[in-house]
Amino acid sequence: MKYYFDWICPPSRAIYLLLKVNNVPFEGFVVSLKRSEHLEESFKSVNRFQRLPCINVDGYQLAESVAIYKYLCKTFLPVIENYNPQLPKEKALVDEYLEWQANNIRLGGAMYFKTQWMFPKLLKSEANIEEVSTFKYVMENSLDTIEDVWLADPNKTFLVSDKISFADIMACVDLEQIRITGYNPFENRPKLEKMWKNVKALTNPFYDEAHEVCYKMGLNKPKL
Amino acid sequence: MKYYFDWICPPSRAIYLLLKVNNVPFEGFVVSLKRSEHLEESFKSVNRFQRLPCINVDGYQLAESVAIYKYLCKTFLPVIENYNPQLPKEKALVDEYLEWQANNIRLGGAMYFKTQWMFPKLLKSEANIEEVSTFKYVMENSLDTIEDVWLADPNKTFLVSDKISFADIMACVDLEQIRITGYNPFENRPKLEKMWKNVKALTNPFYDEAHEVCYKMGLNKPKL
Repeated sequence: MKYYFDWICPPSRAIYLLLKVNNVPFEGFVVSLKRSEHLEESFKSVNRFQRLPCINVDGYQLAESVAIYKYLCKTFLPVIENYNPQLPKEKALVDEYLEWQANNIRLGGAMYFKTQWMFPKLLKSEANIEEVSTFKYVMENSLDTIEDVWLADPNKTFLVSDKISFADIMACVDLEQIRITGYNPFENRPKLEKMWKNVKALTNPFYDEAHEVCYKMGLNKPKL
Repeated sequence: MKYYFDWICPPSRAIYLLLKVNNVPFEGFVVSLKRSEHLEESFKSVNRFQRLPCINVDGYQLAESVAIYKYLCKTFLPVIENYNPQLPKEKALVDEYLEWQANNIRLGGAMYFKTQWMFPKLLKSEANIEEVSTFKYVMENSLDTIEDVWLADPNKTFLVSDKISFADIMACVDLEQIRITGYNPFENRPKLEKMWKNVKALTNPFYDEAHEVCYKMGLNKPKL
């Protein structure tokens, strides 16, 4: 299996972590989104949609992080055992999170990062205050929903149960994207911070390896 | 199983169709998004996120259409047999479509419908041309990708294989949302039209039942 990804892309890091913590064999290729390498004509033979992250297994192409996660669950037993609950009702809650996050913390967090940090750096200009505040609202609302609804049950350390799942990994890669900007998502959100610390502890040293680029970008290497 | 939905919401119609064509027993409740019935305090006991569509099975709450589809596949055998391919590589392509569509035809189509048709009707004002053209671009780009990439293989009548799947149903409910506005998604897209006709033929009379509200809104009851 060949895996194509970029460290700056949150779902790329999520799949990378899933592969590493489960010891799935793969050959990794970093493709630079910044240099639009995924849009080069030759990349069409890797992925027909020219999207990252993606896998290519002897010519079989698959993009979209949740689809890749599901495929890994079907084809690699360790992923099933460790990061994908088997009870249908718990499994469905992981699916619910993975769908929910796309229009909530992913949208808000990634766009807050882009408008507040990335675009101003690239364009050497002031941030567009209106855009930043729109996405900050979505982001903070999503973070509050994770703290108050997803993590409401005091018996659950993680988003879906008392065991880590791919949902928690997806949440943490989004948190790290937000942290690059200097925003602290854990202020007044103690359950979120606890979940994040637990995910880090369970997935290191791969967690820090996957986020090295983020830490450098934010110059906010976290103290643990 | 109790199912809460609104006819005007494309994923609501998709799950409704999946339930009906597979003869899954359920009790259905229409919840008006227009009247914000899902945001009433009492609806929190139905779904903690107050989102549609959602199911409630003896108190077990689940929202997000793809998560509901996955849950039905796990719990109702007919859904597995008819609308969810069993080969891991085909199943993954259905998952890939279901994730891809969210930021493509769903985003473009639903927002084109809202900005071009719904907001002007509700607010009794002119459409915001800039907004409409932004979403029209996303929508047309997505429709072209379905025609040229998803349906590229002449041996496949449907999005993933030569058999209908939930991906095709999801595509068609989005097409109907677009058709309300009077836009014809099938112009110069013959493979898309063929797929849509096949989905209709295989899912009627439920397809027309689920889209009665759309047909009336668009006054464009299709001739077949």
